[in-house]
Amino acid sequence: MTAFVRNQWYVAAYGSEIGPELFARTILGEPIVFYRTADGVVVALADRCVHRRYPLSEGRLDADTIVCGYHGFTYDSTGTCVFVPGQTRVPRTARVSSYPVVEQDSFVWVWIGDREKADAAPIPRAPWLADPDYTTVCGMEPLAARYELLVDNLLDLSHETYLHGGYIGTPEVAATPITTEVDEDNAIIRVSRRMADAECPPFYAKSTGIEGRITRWQDIEYHPPCLYLLHSRVAPAGVLPEADGSDPHGFHVEVVYAITPETEHSTHDFWAVARDFALEDEGVSEFLRESNRTVVLQDVTALDILERVIQTEPEGYQELSINIDAGGLAARRILKRMATA
Amino acid sequence: MTAFVRNQWYVAAYGSEIGPELFARTILGEPIVFYRTADGVVVALADRCVHRRYPLSEGRLDADTIVCGYHGFTYDSTGTCVFVPGQTRVPRTARVSSYPVVEQDSFVWVWIGDREKADAAPIPRAPWLADPDYTTVCGMEPLAARYELLVDNLLDLSHETYLHGGYIGTPEVAATPITTEVDEDNAIIRVSRRMADAECPPFYAKSTGIEGRITRWQDIEYHPPCLYLLHSRVAPAGVLPEADGSDPHGFHVEVVYAITPETEHSTHDFWAVARDFALEDEGVSEFLRESNRTVVLQDVTALDILERVIQTEPEGYQELSINIDAGGLAARRILKRMATA
Amino acid sequence: MTAFVRNQWYVAAYGSEIGPELFARTILGEPIVFYRTADGVVVALADRCVHRRYPLSEGRLDADTIVCGYHGFTYDSTGTCVFVPGQTRVPRTARVSSYPVVEQDSFVWVWIGDREKADAAPIPRAPWLADPDYTTVCGMEPLAARYELLVDNLLDLSHETYLHGGYIGTPEVAATPITTEVDEDNAIIRVSRRMADAECPPFYAKSTGIEGRITRWQDIEYHPPCLYLLHSRVAPAGVLPEADGSDPHGFHVEVVYAITPETEHSTHDFWAVARDFALEDEGVSEFLRESNRTVVLQDVTALDILERVIQTEPEGYQELSINIDAGGLAARRILKRMATA
Repeated sequence: MTAFVRNQWYVAAYGSEIGPELFARTILGEPIVFYRTADGVVVALADRCVHRRYPLSEGRLDADTIVCGYHGFTYDSTGTCVFVPGQTRVPRTARVSSYPVVEQDSFVWVWIGDREKADAAPIPRAPWLADPDYTTVCGMEPLAARYELLVDNLLDLSHETYLHGGYIGTPEVAATPITTEVDEDNAIIRVSRRMADAECPPFYAKSTGIEGRITRWQDIEYHPPCLYLLHSRVAPAGVLPEADGSDPHGFHVEVVYAITPETEHSTHDFWAVARDFALEDEGVSEFLRESNRTVVLQDVTALDILERVIQTEPEGYQELSINIDAGGLAARRILKRMATA
Repeated sequence: MTAFVRNQWYVAAYGSEIGPELFARTILGEPIVFYRTADGVVVALADRCVHRRYPLSEGRLDADTIVCGYHGFTYDSTGTCVFVPGQTRVPRTARVSSYPVVEQDSFVWVWIGDREKADAAPIPRAPWLADPDYTTVCGMEPLAARYELLVDNLLDLSHETYLHGGYIGTPEVAATPITTEVDEDNAIIRVSRRMADAECPPFYAKSTGIEGRITRWQDIEYHPPCLYLLHSRVAPAGVLPEADGSDPHGFHVEVVYAITPETEHSTHDFWAVARDFALEDEGVSEFLRESNRTVVLQDVTALDILERVIQTEPEGYQELSINIDAGGLAARRILKRMATA
Repeated sequence: MTAFVRNQWYVAAYGSEIGPELFARTILGEPIVFYRTADGVVVALADRCVHRRYPLSEGRLDADTIVCGYHGFTYDSTGTCVFVPGQTRVPRTARVSSYPVVEQDSFVWVWIGDREKADAAPIPRAPWLADPDYTTVCGMEPLAARYELLVDNLLDLSHETYLHGGYIGTPEVAATPITTEVDEDNAIIRVSRRMADAECPPFYAKSTGIEGRITRWQDIEYHPPCLYLLHSRVAPAGVLPEADGSDPHGFHVEVVYAITPETEHSTHDFWAVARDFALEDEGVSEFLRESNRTVVLQDVTALDILERVIQTEPEGYQELSINIDAGGLAARRILKRMATA
């Protein structure tokens, strides 16, 4: 399948995961150690001491410096070595790479690639996750599968009926046509399924107070390689947003995935669900947290199986694509273009 | 050692293992899903959906069709896809391979190779396993070793004294000469050990009622690659079969192994023991079940060790063969001829 | 890093590990079976039967012969096969390699390489381990790392402060300069740290009765590839050995490591601590046993991590060496020379 896409921003963690302790995570095969300085800034350094390659994350923080756990080589937050044992002179070349980091929308984004290209690259937004008008539940599941399988999975709305039957899929969902659009200039893939007159699932009826049938939209917006947004809107049947774009009578759930390759065969599967209704209702939060995590784990189980299958398939095995794969195939094409850019 | 021998029938399962549920087993490296239709026919299909290679065995049966657990691609019992999600047209090329299957002698045989060659190939018989005049105990043990090691093992009667001392080996057994014959035309290897006047093991004395010394025959008949028969006959010393081939005063135990490669380094080790005496005696059944399973597991332990050893040996390691290896060497030669045919 | 150094003596075991039972250990990738004959002599044979490569260590001893557990091939203590099943003639070529063995200083040394070169090669000594004027505690920890990482580790005295802080490292230790000398002719590396006037650690104060400050010497003597000695001497500050070399007022701890590669990525890490004071004090023995084992296990943990890191690093990764690495770099150079000799 496609290769890693470098020179891109990736979600490395939730901001809440990084505190004043060393935190190790591998992104696109690069081992990185993270911590938050006393000033609250997130630092990301290559997780290998220049001396003998010992992981810095096995050491300890001393003020805002990392002390290597093996021989005591000490690095400041820029990655510059400021102390070595047994001598006063620190070699000039003693430094580890530091990674550009931006904290935004509750995520810690890290730039993987050539440092000087980071500034010019916009980071896609998921503003709801840090918006007080929304309530968010979230998590991260480790996936023992290549990230392309998760991209395929998320861009296809039809597997809901089969893999997630009883959770998010219904027969009506499976029967509704899907539209796929590719914005080649901005490298965004949009997949939509809009039901004008659908049955209201019990969860929505209970949490929104809507009675009767609904208008139900699911609009996917994938910003390759990392950020996936699913804008979900329900409203009483026939009720549309206002002409100015406001939507006072709609109920919105913003499902956000960050798809971050860990290695060639494993992926960090970040997921978050933000809603603009029943904000204080812990029962609704609990329902969304449990049901979305269940759905994610069903995908993890299936994709882990698929990864093992693919690894044992002979080179050049066949696939057979159909209409539902339009979004996934477009994503593969754009990821391939990005990887070779 | 030798490669897989394709274009052959292999035992895939006992008939009793296959019912109206999906059953996955890999044969010669080919993942296969089995089930029994409402009509009682065993179906064997390639266990990979044409869409994205998801294992069909992870899906479910709907009447006699398989519904893929990922996207709902649905296949009938010939492997033809009869439904895909999101569109009414099913692509013409959407089908998975189906395997020729024959149920015979309590086994489910599957043909691995070119479909059109299956009809002309006879399946070797082990009729005792489904014969009401015999009582059979059986099992299957997974072996983490290449199948050639099991062939070597079963064609050699002398290791009984060492690996199975206390079970089936006795000093008299080790001291009795062995004859080996190869039927090149029919590709059958015969190894025999016939003791005209031997001590009667306590088990036989008790279960047959024979008093005093016995005539004891062990006649191996190996039909490469899969079926191994060990005809064991005991009778009072001097009592031989009649001139017409009938043998009213002999007691017969038919030991049957099916040697089915799973992968290059693992094997399905089917074993069965059929007898024509003490048919209703559950104590005899229990003894034969436990003692044969113990012997099989002793072999499994030894061969698993040997597989690990061989995998770490340098290329082209040496062996030193002696007289007892005549049967095993003949088997290797015939398997090699079959593999390159 | 460097390759195996063959044509050398290696510690295979403590003499106390080898008795009248079969004992398997892999040295430099060579599987060896050991046992002690009725005469008390240690035998070391290649652990693979000539017949089908079954490990002899899975068989059993019969008097001083090994009977293979699979087919009964039987070998005497020279490795000559003296019995095969099913025939009276034993093939002339039926023999397994035997390894030169010397038992010395409580260790079983085995020669890995060309047999005829063994006699001329001296075995380095660690006489304290079998000296009644010393009391010794010892052990062996399996290390899942290449032996070069353990050589690096033991030749560097500065990591004590970081990896073993609270055990053997103190700030004074880290601050004291180290001298490194290489005896190229005899292939011995010496690393010393001598503190003329140091604080007395509580353990020494208690076990030796010294009051006040001490003179403390640590003199490493590494005999590549296998034997590492750390001569540790403490005495009241200012008290030196006599002019004749005797040292009645010094207290001596001889720390001995034997560094024996098991495979390319694992090592037998033998360690022993001998002392010439408090000989009968079981509390002192217990303290040294527990504290040294703890230190060894801290190294094992760190080196196991480092091995995993190195295996995933790209080819030709960088290291940055400083003054403290002088001993380790000299060792690498000499090991490389030995490996290519």
